[in-house]
Amino acid sequence: MKTKVIMLNEERNVSLTAYIQQVGGEFTNIPRRPAVLILPGGGYQMCSDREADPIVLPYLKAGYHAFILRYSLREHAVWPNPLNDYDTAMALIRRKAEEWNLYADKIAVIGFSAGGHLAASAATMSENRPNAAILGYPVINEENAHIWEKTAPDIVSAVDKDTCPCFVFATRTDTTVPVENSLQFVTALAANNISFESHIYAYGPHGFSTAEDSVLTPGTRICNRAPHWVADSIEWLKDMFGTFGNGAMTEPAIGRYANGNSAEYLSVDCTMGHLMKNERAGTMIGAMMAQMGQKEEDKQEEQNEMAASMSPEVMQAMMNNMLLRDMLQLTLVPEETIAQINAQLNAIPNV
Amino acid sequence: MKTKVIMLNEERNVSLTAYIQQVGGEFTNIPRRPAVLILPGGGYQMCSDREADPIVLPYLKAGYHAFILRYSLREHAVWPNPLNDYDTAMALIRRKAEEWNLYADKIAVIGFSAGGHLAASAATMSENRPNAAILGYPVINEENAHIWEKTAPDIVSAVDKDTCPCFVFATRTDTTVPVENSLQFVTALAANNISFESHIYAYGPHGFSTAEDSVLTPGTRICNRAPHWVADSIEWLKDMFGTFGNGAMTEPAIGRYANGNSAEYLSVDCTMGHLMKNERAGTMIGAMMAQMGQKEEDKQEEQNEMAASMSPEVMQAMMNNMLLRDMLQLTLVPEETIAQINAQLNAIPNV
Amino acid sequence: MKTKVIMLNEERNVSLTAYIQQVGGEFTNIPRRPAVLILPGGGYQMCSDREADPIVLPYLKAGYHAFILRYSLREHAVWPNPLNDYDTAMALIRRKAEEWNLYADKIAVIGFSAGGHLAASAATMSENRPNAAILGYPVINEENAHIWEKTAPDIVSAVDKDTCPCFVFATRTDTTVPVENSLQFVTALAANNISFESHIYAYGPHGFSTAEDSVLTPGTRICNRAPHWVADSIEWLKDMFGTFGNGAMTEPAIGRYANGNSAEYLSVDCTMGHLMKNERAGTMIGAMMAQMGQKEEDKQEEQNEMAASMSPEVMQAMMNNMLLRDMLQLTLVPEETIAQINAQLNAIPNV
Amino acid sequence: MKTKVIMLNEERNVSLTAYIQQVGGEFTNIPRRPAVLILPGGGYQMCSDREADPIVLPYLKAGYHAFILRYSLREHAVWPNPLNDYDTAMALIRRKAEEWNLYADKIAVIGFSAGGHLAASAATMSENRPNAAILGYPVINEENAHIWEKTAPDIVSAVDKDTCPCFVFATRTDTTVPVENSLQFVTALAANNISFESHIYAYGPHGFSTAEDSVLTPGTRICNRAPHWVADSIEWLKDMFGTFGNGAMTEPAIGRYANGNSAEYLSVDCTMGHLMKNERAGTMIGAMMAQMGQKEEDKQEEQNEMAASMSPEVMQAMMNNMLLRDMLQLTLVPEETIAQINAQLNAIPNV
Repeated sequence: MKTKVIMLNEERNVSLTAYIQQVGGEFTNIPRRPAVLILPGGGYQMCSDREADPIVLPYLKAGYHAFILRYSLREHAVWPNPLNDYDTAMALIRRKAEEWNLYADKIAVIGFSAGGHLAASAATMSENRPNAAILGYPVINEENAHIWEKTAPDIVSAVDKDTCPCFVFATRTDTTVPVENSLQFVTALAANNISFESHIYAYGPHGFSTAEDSVLTPGTRICNRAPHWVADSIEWLKDMFGTFGNGAMTEPAIGRYANGNSAEYLSVDCTMGHLMKNERAGTMIGAMMAQMGQKEEDKQEEQNEMAASMSPEVMQAMMNNMLLRDMLQLTLVPEETIAQINAQLNAIPNV
Repeated sequence: MKTKVIMLNEERNVSLTAYIQQVGGEFTNIPRRPAVLILPGGGYQMCSDREADPIVLPYLKAGYHAFILRYSLREHAVWPNPLNDYDTAMALIRRKAEEWNLYADKIAVIGFSAGGHLAASAATMSENRPNAAILGYPVINEENAHIWEKTAPDIVSAVDKDTCPCFVFATRTDTTVPVENSLQFVTALAANNISFESHIYAYGPHGFSTAEDSVLTPGTRICNRAPHWVADSIEWLKDMFGTFGNGAMTEPAIGRYANGNSAEYLSVDCTMGHLMKNERAGTMIGAMMAQMGQKEEDKQEEQNEMAASMSPEVMQAMMNNMLLRDMLQLTLVPEETIAQINAQLNAIPNV
Repeated sequence: MKTKVIMLNEERNVSLTAYIQQVGGEFTNIPRRPAVLILPGGGYQMCSDREADPIVLPYLKAGYHAFILRYSLREHAVWPNPLNDYDTAMALIRRKAEEWNLYADKIAVIGFSAGGHLAASAATMSENRPNAAILGYPVINEENAHIWEKTAPDIVSAVDKDTCPCFVFATRTDTTVPVENSLQFVTALAANNISFESHIYAYGPHGFSTAEDSVLTPGTRICNRAPHWVADSIEWLKDMFGTFGNGAMTEPAIGRYANGNSAEYLSVDCTMGHLMKNERAGTMIGAMMAQMGQKEEDKQEEQNEMAASMSPEVMQAMMNNMLLRDMLQLTLVPEETIAQINAQLNAIPNV
Repeated sequence: MKTKVIMLNEERNVSLTAYIQQVGGEFTNIPRRPAVLILPGGGYQMCSDREADPIVLPYLKAGYHAFILRYSLREHAVWPNPLNDYDTAMALIRRKAEEWNLYADKIAVIGFSAGGHLAASAATMSENRPNAAILGYPVINEENAHIWEKTAPDIVSAVDKDTCPCFVFATRTDTTVPVENSLQFVTALAANNISFESHIYAYGPHGFSTAEDSVLTPGTRICNRAPHWVADSIEWLKDMFGTFGNGAMTEPAIGRYANGNSAEYLSVDCTMGHLMKNERAGTMIGAMMAQMGQKEEDKQEEQNEMAASMSPEVMQAMMNNMLLRDMLQLTLVPEETIAQINAQLNAIPNV
């Protein structure tokens, strides 16, 4: 592992610390690695050491390269300086992808508290968007952002279809950055069809970092689920980025949207309700279902108890939110037929 | 362990299945046990067996008595029948507290999907409120509730100061009961100062129960964090109810409110902002802080870096949400002095 | 779930308590279930309730049927009464496989302390051998067995090729049944090529059952790894028995032997040293390796650093313990070629 | 975190890589840190990179300083060169304790495979003994050691009362270093009253390091418990060394011996059998028990079922291995009386 500090802006004292791991050699199947870029917290007044090295370590252990950005603080924190720092850092990292053996499209930003505000800004407003964001007890809404930096923007209203997938955690009893910040953010993600995972732990103080003995003040009261976010966020990154295969990362388990309704073309991963609103897709599916209904009558005994007891209205309402893929699988349509249907839908623009 | 089925309403086919564990004997320190009351899901059309016995088992293992309520379905599910079923069951369980050796004030309701709607109704509207509620991918808002039962009430608007603490989980990609239901509920809990914990897992289908191989359809795609809710909810119950001590349950780690602002009298667990709005408390704390400020000047080198760099406005804004207890502990006020201050505040009505 | 108590021997007060779970219905992919048979401990003087129901519950949760055998105690514990009780119970369970919807060849015995002695006896000496055994802080050697029951046999000397796979756990500081008992047992399993897993936790008392608050005396000093045996043993059973697939259990991950050297015919799962001692196999492999060696010379740059630096003697010694399958895979022989080689070896008796 | 490479022996290419973490500042309660010294494996032919940085990271995360020793290999590996390398490294680390802010008496050695042989040598034969040792699939007995290095010593016979506490793990199906090596080692530890913890996982290859995707060859078959050794060994180190308190490490949970029988003076942590063999202690305890027996008769109903049913011989045999402390606690002797008895025993030499 090599470490180096790169000064990004002398005047504002902005630096990037890089932890670059070995590839090849005995890591014979690993020609490149994904990466994390960490933004420590500290109310735009400082960059906390408790949210720097202790955060780098578990992601390095999981096989990632890691970077810590120490961004503009105090009088230099006037907006958009910190976001510009982020953009400079991310652009540099991607430019060095060859040299540092990293995947330029598998870089997650990780931010805490005010650093979480900056990471959420990166996820929603930056030029060089991260591919995923992990936000720990983040400052999100304007009211709270302005406590720490008067020029810092509201994030809630900035969430849109281009926001990257997010992993958000906090404690319910945080008295420095109220839990509403996290809730408002994931609510906005849900409204925009963005993939996310969220954990709100019952109690614990603000700024708990990894919640290990080595970063907490002795005697801190914090629930025993709080340390789980570290391992959980690593598993979530595997779901988003894939893991180490033979010379390449494996396929991700999930995409950036919760379903296909936000893509450029239709697919079996759209909801039934969304597809039925499209004339071409509606006609196609209607015909398909009429045909299936015929077959269904022949095997009524296979229907499950619940479906049998439903009224047509309930069935209708329930199907609106269902993915076509799930409906086809439930009715035992073979995978290759599903692939054919998907190919047909892929030809229809999602307008 | 003894099991028995008690018919609560023959006409509507409502029954309570009880799993009563041994007390005393080799469980010499356990004279009574806390309990869980499980409400399986099934769209008010059925009570799913996948959310009955498989849910009972981990709570029995954790030392709880357990009950399954099979409530009014289909034509009998017209409101308030299911809620009445719940009230009948909970009243019965509490009435039998002596006979069954259970703690009448340590009973959690656990509901899934439509059963989660019923459990949330119990938490917010019932006569015999549970002491805690665990809600799995619950139906919460009126729009979704009406899909399953036209007369079922909206829960979001029913959350108030008397709502019990809640543990809420779901998957982000649930296409049967959209994740917004869970988000709206915890947002309402936050607005009402109620204790909660919440886990939204990145992906997985509706109705995943414990997410173990023995309850999932083989091949189900669900993220590997989803099974954690079982152990996490048990740890959360320990935090709410305490655990098995010598002849009694130990003290809970958390209360029903996130802070003291909702209690009848003031305390050091109120936020500074809340206390300062009260004339008597404000005067008392002002005097105390003036005195402390004096001492503080003598040991400025002990101030941490972040506090030192803050403007008075930031300090003020930050302190508004802070608990007086935390502020006193941070400034190293001895525990007995804190107890004295608390006693003084306990004499001031919280109006 | 149905529970019933079956009296096996009135005179000796031997009973079998059955916990039979639902199959089919909403558990549509589960026509049968594997099972566990639990033998509580208690020095052949009692059957501890702390090692009865609390043990049943996690295996039920994992999808197993479960049984508790309360075997002959005190004056009735004279050997072979307890072992006969076990044999009677296991024979009954297998006879009822159809009625109870269980897999007769997927039944694990689980025993603790003296019940661990009985379970180990079942694993090594019974007529109706279990398919796997889980032993908690078991009594194993004659010296310790005779403390509790003068006629109880030594287990160490009874381990042989017909012993079933075992999962063994204990604490290092057990002062009732010294850890040597567990160590002698797994050493004997290793000597006989039997599959096993073993966990010796740093400290904790004898008889800790699941190590949960609900079974421990409050204040018990026990290391925080001790409760892991429950989940670990369930994962191990999945490895031995497979898990719930579509209408059948999936393939096990491991067999009853650590390698193929104990099977009736040779295979690629035998060690190289074992194969080379067989004339037919030795000739066949010698020819194969000569051919491969030829190819190897052509791609020397692919050899790893370590292999390159080894002397021929080290290579030879190292290969003796290696499975042929692993060696073929390491040298990138295609899976179908490996299958062909395996088929050839399967024709050679293992003598 | 600062890293540096220190060349210990140019001729033999022996180097120590140091990873020194921050103390003080925001880690206000941490003036010093415990440390780990890692010895990678590689058959005394190489030092595997898979067992270097990936091992450093979790212990750094847990708050430890970390060191990697690249010791004498191949022609330089002739004994005692590697052990001398270890001794040089450990002496250097302890000498630098002030400069590097580490606890000189809280340094664990961690070794894998041949590095495990070297770590076990350090634990049993070195001049500068480590305070704990973590051994992964170690080479232990002479037969196996000689495969890799003809002059390497047998470890089994070297275990004695001065051996440090050990944490040992391996897989049962290891075909490079058979599991017997680990079993023989822990058996020797048990025979010498040394504290240990041990985990033998059901299946997996030799050299699995942390068993994470980032260090395993894709497709490796290894049981899902194998990765647990990392977290478990960190918890075990906490038990041995304490954790981060206010300016000092907290008290360890366990000592270096399983009981007090190996200490210089007697104590209540000796077994009853050991104490009764000492004339002074025997007399003292005999008198004490006679007195207690008197009281016991008055409260017979408090005796538990099992004790009541035991014959005097069984009671006697059972008590031999029991600690006096446990017996006193079981009979509800107050802690201060136990402390007095302990003080009396502390005056009696353990001969």
